[in-house]
Amino acid sequence: MISTASAAAHPNIAFIKYWGDNNQELRIPAHSSLSMNLKELETRTRVSFDPSLAGDQLILNGIHEEGAALQRVSKMLNRIRNMGGLNAFAIVESENNFPTGAGIASSASAFAALSCAASSAAGLCLSERELSRLARTGSGSASRSIPEGYVEWQAGTDHDSSYAFSIASPDHWDLADLIVLISEEHKETGSSLGHSLADTSPIQGARVEDANRRLEICRKALLERDFSIFADIVEQDCNLMHAVMMTSDPPLYYWFPGTLEVMRAVQIWRSHGIPVCYTIDAGPNVHVICPVKEAEKVKRELGSLEGVNSVLECTPGGPTHLLESDFPGV
Amino acid sequence: MISTASAAAHPNIAFIKYWGDNNQELRIPAHSSLSMNLKELETRTRVSFDPSLAGDQLILNGIHEEGAALQRVSKMLNRIRNMGGLNAFAIVESENNFPTGAGIASSASAFAALSCAASSAAGLCLSERELSRLARTGSGSASRSIPEGYVEWQAGTDHDSSYAFSIASPDHWDLADLIVLISEEHKETGSSLGHSLADTSPIQGARVEDANRRLEICRKALLERDFSIFADIVEQDCNLMHAVMMTSDPPLYYWFPGTLEVMRAVQIWRSHGIPVCYTIDAGPNVHVICPVKEAEKVKRELGSLEGVNSVLECTPGGPTHLLESDFPGV
Repeated sequence: MISTASAAAHPNIAFIKYWGDNNQELRIPAHSSLSMNLKELETRTRVSFDPSLAGDQLILNGIHEEGAALQRVSKMLNRIRNMGGLNAFAIVESENNFPTGAGIASSASAFAALSCAASSAAGLCLSERELSRLARTGSGSASRSIPEGYVEWQAGTDHDSSYAFSIASPDHWDLADLIVLISEEHKETGSSLGHSLADTSPIQGARVEDANRRLEICRKALLERDFSIFADIVEQDCNLMHAVMMTSDPPLYYWFPGTLEVMRAVQIWRSHGIPVCYTIDAGPNVHVICPVKEAEKVKRELGSLEGVNSVLECTPGGPTHLLESDFPGV
Repeated sequence: MISTASAAAHPNIAFIKYWGDNNQELRIPAHSSLSMNLKELETRTRVSFDPSLAGDQLILNGIHEEGAALQRVSKMLNRIRNMGGLNAFAIVESENNFPTGAGIASSASAFAALSCAASSAAGLCLSERELSRLARTGSGSASRSIPEGYVEWQAGTDHDSSYAFSIASPDHWDLADLIVLISEEHKETGSSLGHSLADTSPIQGARVEDANRRLEICRKALLERDFSIFADIVEQDCNLMHAVMMTSDPPLYYWFPGTLEVMRAVQIWRSHGIPVCYTIDAGPNVHVICPVKEAEKVKRELGSLEGVNSVLECTPGGPTHLLESDFPGV
């Protein structure tokens, strides 16, 4: 008997970043983080446990994947098979409506959707908190893609205490994330390897020690919709993560000249009174954050910068959810 | 009676950077640093104590300066007048053979030359160590421009113990500093103000705590002419300083898109086996360091990068010294 379920999940953009683990195997992070789901970007994943299969299969955007990608998915499926008492292998079919590996955190939505679809197909009925924990074991930031809107991932100290929860619904604050695509080349160092290098930087300890201060400032600014305080702390937190990356051994550089051009422009615009700030994940793209009502103006300004190819506009997104019927195209 | 003396000094490029003071007034730094004098760049300064003057005068590159620049020079002259028991005001005429305020540390050579010329004109006969301490009070990094070649500035804890000394002569290692001029605009935030912001960064403490480790690795690599180890630690130290700058409150950004373009190119070249590394001061220019015998090849490569206007080639320089006769042009 084949058992199938499908789920959809959004990637998220972290305002207070996750970088570095206390437990790499379980992805218990070194500190808490805070993010917003991105409504317009979505991963849709169908999982079918099929007793006739000789091994797990992964079809990503229509292409059969082998090697490390498949192994990482199988590891998650093993965890779920253990939880559900299943033996069957599965076919995992997954599609992103955005470019993979270009610095938009595709592993977050991928493992959120996979956890949701696979646990459902395995007959498990997991709570949001249980799903968040489960997704975390596949990709740390996937834990934040499970709940809706604005999300805090409580670092915790073990599997049970490390999960994410919503601190505000998507309609709490009309923020736009204008994702400026600098380069869609596949990034050189994946996040998983990067996290393991964090502790080789002489400043990671200080960054982690300071994380709760930043988180509390950011959470308060977000709940009070205070853009000015929000902007300063989001940029400082982003710079701290990239500082650790660039001073680890070996160093990781994610910024390109175009990245810095947008960073500088954003700061000038803010100094001229436009409510706008930037944040950057483990890739060259710049996430330019502003209130939705400023988005048209900011997009026009971004369009005037050299080296800006395209801009994706995102708004706060809902939670990871099961899809009633199979989604079209898979 | 007019008493005159002239001196010449080179700026220096720090391999282990100075950023942050324990005592701002005396410029006792938060940690030790390490640098190389730059032979081809020079400040020449003539100081004339003249009892007929109604105040100090500063003529910088042929232009009468007032305000903050003159005040900073007067403060140094006051210190020297106190030491020498003088009352007369002075005319200070100074010329750089390189662009002022473009991220080439002009204050280092300026205060090194000024200390040397003014103390001599005041009839003082200071040792190198005494001159280094004196120059430090005008501009911290000026202490490093006093001795020859490769120089260590021992942080110390007070005026007496904070001075620089040569750890190797200019001919110890034939390194070239290819200064890639990204922009000759005057930088937005001077170093003096920047130093006072260092402690507002959540990672400055960790950077300072780690400074001796970096200094020892760098000193050893330099003394053993081990370019590979030298390159890694110089870049890490540079990135740590800029990390502190970019995470201070307010943040300081010195990198331009062209800065990052050169940084990235240098890393690619090194990964291809060319012995080359970069370092960046409080400005957009990139100092590309390589053995002199590689300099032609590296300059050709630099010339192929977009946005690289010009490259100044420097080699290890001698100490600050008195000029026998007045230098031409002043």
